[in-house]
Amino acid sequence: MLHENLGINEKGRLTFAGADAVLLAEKYGTPLMLLDEERIRRNIRRYKEALLECFGEGSFPLFASKALCFKGIYRLAKEEGIGMDAVSVGELYTAKAAGFDLSKAYFHGNNKTDADIAYAVENGVGAFVVDNADELLALEKYLASADKKQDILLRITPGIDPHTHKAIVTGSVDSKFGSAIETGQAEEITRLALSLPHIVLKGFHCHVGSQIFDIEPFTEAADIMLRFIAYVAAETGYTAEVLNLGGGLGVKYVEGQPELDYAAVIRDMAAVIKLRASAIGCALPHILLEPGRSLVADAGVTLYTVGSVKTIKGYKSYVSVDGGMPDNPRYALYEAPYTVLLASKAAEKADFICSVVGRCCESGDILQENVDIPKPVRGDILAVLCTGAYNYAMASNYNRIPRPAVVWVKEGADRLAIRRESFEDMTRLEV
Amino acid sequence: MLHENLGINEKGRLTFAGADAVLLAEKYGTPLMLLDEERIRRNIRRYKEALLECFGEGSFPLFASKALCFKGIYRLAKEEGIGMDAVSVGELYTAKAAGFDLSKAYFHGNNKTDADIAYAVENGVGAFVVDNADELLALEKYLASADKKQDILLRITPGIDPHTHKAIVTGSVDSKFGSAIETGQAEEITRLALSLPHIVLKGFHCHVGSQIFDIEPFTEAADIMLRFIAYVAAETGYTAEVLNLGGGLGVKYVEGQPELDYAAVIRDMAAVIKLRASAIGCALPHILLEPGRSLVADAGVTLYTVGSVKTIKGYKSYVSVDGGMPDNPRYALYEAPYTVLLASKAAEKADFICSVVGRCCESGDILQENVDIPKPVRGDILAVLCTGAYNYAMASNYNRIPRPAVVWVKEGADRLAIRRESFEDMTRLEV
Repeated sequence: MLHENLGINEKGRLTFAGADAVLLAEKYGTPLMLLDEERIRRNIRRYKEALLECFGEGSFPLFASKALCFKGIYRLAKEEGIGMDAVSVGELYTAKAAGFDLSKAYFHGNNKTDADIAYAVENGVGAFVVDNADELLALEKYLASADKKQDILLRITPGIDPHTHKAIVTGSVDSKFGSAIETGQAEEITRLALSLPHIVLKGFHCHVGSQIFDIEPFTEAADIMLRFIAYVAAETGYTAEVLNLGGGLGVKYVEGQPELDYAAVIRDMAAVIKLRASAIGCALPHILLEPGRSLVADAGVTLYTVGSVKTIKGYKSYVSVDGGMPDNPRYALYEAPYTVLLASKAAEKADFICSVVGRCCESGDILQENVDIPKPVRGDILAVLCTGAYNYAMASNYNRIPRPAVVWVKEGADRLAIRRESFEDMTRLEV
Repeated sequence: MLHENLGINEKGRLTFAGADAVLLAEKYGTPLMLLDEERIRRNIRRYKEALLECFGEGSFPLFASKALCFKGIYRLAKEEGIGMDAVSVGELYTAKAAGFDLSKAYFHGNNKTDADIAYAVENGVGAFVVDNADELLALEKYLASADKKQDILLRITPGIDPHTHKAIVTGSVDSKFGSAIETGQAEEITRLALSLPHIVLKGFHCHVGSQIFDIEPFTEAADIMLRFIAYVAAETGYTAEVLNLGGGLGVKYVEGQPELDYAAVIRDMAAVIKLRASAIGCALPHILLEPGRSLVADAGVTLYTVGSVKTIKGYKSYVSVDGGMPDNPRYALYEAPYTVLLASKAAEKADFICSVVGRCCESGDILQENVDIPKPVRGDILAVLCTGAYNYAMASNYNRIPRPAVVWVKEGADRLAIRRESFEDMTRLEV
């Protein structure tokens, strides 16, 4: 099976985190997202322990909220003792509502409004990750009026192309994010930050991209950032305490992709980073990482009910399910690969090649093309694997389809995490 | 200006449907969607009057709900006396909650669940547009158990390529929708429908695609469908009463695209269709059309506040606004073109070339690239035009960003249509 939290039971049905997926589909209805609690905890611990081991106290992972934001995930992050990265006040609000201590929150985003700045400062956000000069000046203005100081990191674009999907490459010079070293704008904004009396510059942030399986983009970025830190120290006397290398480690969505051991990857990264720091003559700052996808993606599975099976003579076969791009727009957006299984007949021979499509009135509403599954009939339960990241977080009500329920599964036991949206919920804002 | 509901007032600000866009942004906050009520009524009337004039009683437009679904739009559709097309029970529920008579609803979708079928029959939906044999048999089974009959159309794929974006081409043989004439499956499902005692076949439906500016795909589809109707009549004795030609007429998003006069287009279509019917020897059925985009797109504008302006030396400039792919994912999905104006400085020279990007932590969160606007500063109000269709309907809470407020504008007067989503709203489903 794709991941070790998957299995097939004596009834020939898919199991996930020890539970019979078909029974959960019957109990909660479909579409349904399952989340494997222990898998998330395991993923978190691999990051946390490796960062501590390699870089010492002050180096830890921040959960990248944008991958999956709801109250339950912050309770878990709190219990595991990690930080969070947020890109909006909505994420900060959700974490706070779950009892998460916002002093462990790093507030990202290329466009923070004045209201966002006020909310984050007043609620004690640990650090702003300042994207640009407009934000820096707006933050300073607010802090001056409130007579407060605020820790910040500056987002820097190191100029890295990690060879991944265009839409999720973020470290190149031509980016909406941050200030580039190459153009001199990183130095400019650093000098500006150092000149502002209410801004406390703690260090720098960079992010090279997403779904990366090699350590080179990270070590290359670290090398560039350490050289920048050394340059800034030489030019201004300012020494960064923190280097946040962002997120982006890859997840195995389909057979053929590697399954990374994040702890081993961090150890490998650390060895290279320490050598480079030593060669540059730069004291090693605290290292932060911002995993999102790699903490939650493989802890999620989405279950659907098959509604129709259609073979177009001379063309291909379509299997329609009761969800689709409203709960998972990633194929429509990126042609993202996913593994599809027929949960209700998981032990049968997978010899029916088909496109698995959603229920939306849109040809692009595809979950995956050319998958091999046992031939389904209306009523079968189909599973799309590795949907824990960027599925619920990106869900819409397109075609007025309610968002699915989300259920925690832990060693075979289930409990509701997010209730299914109702028709009443979907119309509640309308006058 | 792109459409006649736009203007510039004496303060140099954009006006929309007679209202100062900047004042509305101040009153309601941003991001904000404005809807021009009279423009929607005008668009509806052009379709309704032309269909009646050309094809007589029984020929009328159905509003394609997927373009923009909320209670207010159905009140308006009801007042204007048109029908609706729905693709989900969520859309039917919303229409009913607004007092819309569901006997004027046509229920589409390639995957209707048993619960969907029960809801639609029990709530008196005018007609099912049956996609496939699985659905047809499930509907018959339900009707038999409930001892009811139900009018239906059958969705047929005529085998047309309207040369538009791949994701929104739906009339070709290889489609998740309907049954193809070419493969013989259209005839098969027609014979099946005619054999089922609780199914009342009223006719056929086809849909060739979206954002089409020529009448040929429609007249070609009509020709194929009329030949099919004649063939079915000759083979089975069954004569279709209704031919629903779907939607898909194009909307002017940017200069250079034509602005269609829908009434004139329908008259042109009708002339060709009548000639073809006469040539084929097929009695002209009632003609239905399903406009969505062309009723609401150019009646919508989205206003944003500029948060940062960044010029990357040697590369390009980015203007970040306080919305983006959560409220308008169409550039991320289709690289859809939009016209962008600086509403707060609408009379100034547009000589600043930039990418207008959203606030999400994702490089693909772009509203439009290479637009020419006056150089903005933080706090300026920016307008994206022609956002009435497939914007609010596709909106998500990605990055935990609340959905915008929607405001009706009518001859300069504004009233709330959908209130802005709150942080409390976004967390309400979470346990």
